[in-house]
Amino acid sequence: MSLLIVGTMAFDALETPFGKVDRIIGGSGTYAAWAASNYTSNTKMVSIVGGDFPKEEIAALEARGVSFDGLEIVPDEKSFFWSGKYHMDMNTRDTLVTDLNVLARFDPKIPDSYQDAKYVMLGNLSPAVQISVLKQLKSRPKLVIMDTMNFWMDVAMDDLRTALSMVDLLMVNDSEARQLSGEYSLVKAAKKIQAMGPKYIIIKKGEHGALLFHGDKIFSAPALPLEDVFDPTGAGDTFAGGFIGYLTRIDDISFESMKAGIIVGSSMASYCVEKFGPTRLKEITADDISARVDEFVALANFEVR
Amino acid sequence: MSLLIVGTMAFDALETPFGKVDRIIGGSGTYAAWAASNYTSNTKMVSIVGGDFPKEEIAALEARGVSFDGLEIVPDEKSFFWSGKYHMDMNTRDTLVTDLNVLARFDPKIPDSYQDAKYVMLGNLSPAVQISVLKQLKSRPKLVIMDTMNFWMDVAMDDLRTALSMVDLLMVNDSEARQLSGEYSLVKAAKKIQAMGPKYIIIKKGEHGALLFHGDKIFSAPALPLEDVFDPTGAGDTFAGGFIGYLTRIDDISFESMKAGIIVGSSMASYCVEKFGPTRLKEITADDISARVDEFVALANFEVR
Repeated sequence: MSLLIVGTMAFDALETPFGKVDRIIGGSGTYAAWAASNYTSNTKMVSIVGGDFPKEEIAALEARGVSFDGLEIVPDEKSFFWSGKYHMDMNTRDTLVTDLNVLARFDPKIPDSYQDAKYVMLGNLSPAVQISVLKQLKSRPKLVIMDTMNFWMDVAMDDLRTALSMVDLLMVNDSEARQLSGEYSLVKAAKKIQAMGPKYIIIKKGEHGALLFHGDKIFSAPALPLEDVFDPTGAGDTFAGGFIGYLTRIDDISFESMKAGIIVGSSMASYCVEKFGPTRLKEITADDISARVDEFVALANFEVR
Repeated sequence: MSLLIVGTMAFDALETPFGKVDRIIGGSGTYAAWAASNYTSNTKMVSIVGGDFPKEEIAALEARGVSFDGLEIVPDEKSFFWSGKYHMDMNTRDTLVTDLNVLARFDPKIPDSYQDAKYVMLGNLSPAVQISVLKQLKSRPKLVIMDTMNFWMDVAMDDLRTALSMVDLLMVNDSEARQLSGEYSLVKAAKKIQAMGPKYIIIKKGEHGALLFHGDKIFSAPALPLEDVFDPTGAGDTFAGGFIGYLTRIDDISFESMKAGIIVGSSMASYCVEKFGPTRLKEITADDISARVDEFVALANFEVR
């Protein structure tokens, strides 16, 4: 099976209570592709970068089975740049700089070589871009998941509604689920969002784990309690990439498989936050992921006699 | 096995986004005893009430196997009264009135008939009262758990340190764990609190569930995602009473049994919040609890192939 990822490839400047970096590789597509590459060697990237984006970063992902036929390189312009500062609780952050650069003109063209993708992840981009990608696919994929954020609810709600009506699964955090639905209760929020289109909703709660909703079924995944979160940047995209990479590998979209995918995605995200940017994500092996999955089993397992 | 509960029996006035009541039975001892009575008919209550406390409330608990040899009734005074108002998120509340009344002179005497108690729950009371109870016990119980709150950290930290050195398990919410330890990370907070005495820490996170820490072991229990929380009053005491009632019944304090106890306590707490005060807690049967435990199993269960 093959996986199509649409997301940013970018530079980030990050400041956390543990330190700062002025320029490190980032972007939702980057994190998702690294995570997914642990489970599939057939990932097709759709993104846009400037002439400043390091060729060796692209080569490193190619070596993990990621195709870049759908990457647009604009030689004379700069890559997307984001700068943010995290507060002590690591759940809130201030955006210091957002330089769209090449992202402002992102109008993805899906190559013919990508048309066989059965699994699709739409990273957090403008809903118009997300819709354009889906419209270019000649056959309906088996699973389309999308990320979004409060910004698009504020400035592009009509497009966002259209995008939601076209996807199978929406992945948002708890405050975004509340804003999108107008409901405080996450159970009610998930029902309202399901009525907008996606039959599956994953609500990410940071240090409190994640919830998966489908019809009347709910799965509550714990987060691994960590002594330190060094840098939370990319944890959500790593989670999403690990989730859909796992489903692509086993080619099954049952509720039970999605539960497993969430644990796999959470395991990778728990590594991601250990170092700045995707540094740690690039280091981990299948054995590391398997060991972390075992920690999740020990953490969540119980039996009532 | 028998269970000793030290806690308040009181009146509450409550206001939530769903309605208000001017005067309803409350108190940590009341909630804990109702919850525990689903698992043991050998509970010994230590508390104090005024002449205004309804005799039928005491009789209803006696019918569930709760002994009141250790209840002091002060005929000419009033019972403890608390009034609070909850905000929309149900996790924050304003205290409107705290009338200590008889509680100001609470100096519990442990009757001889209570000396065989193997399990002890010290509800949220002044640390001096908690210490006094433990000093009166002639043999060390098998398990002593205690609750406390930020107020005692502010006004009686020395006594609180002494109390902590005498108990096996501390049950607090996340903000209290952070205040007590001075650590933001709950993993670090739990380690610091373990060094103060209790070898087991349960950190309650409201709608995000609870964490159990013991040495390097961690258990993460989910909370049941609810459409509505009608009134959260007493949920924590119900959780504690269900937890220790279950352990009293099976007479086992292994980490695995504590995990099960947390699920049992969470199940009862999820019923408690459905109606004002202990109303719903008084209605539920063993079958109801068992059905809710099954919901927790479905909610948390996963398998990664």
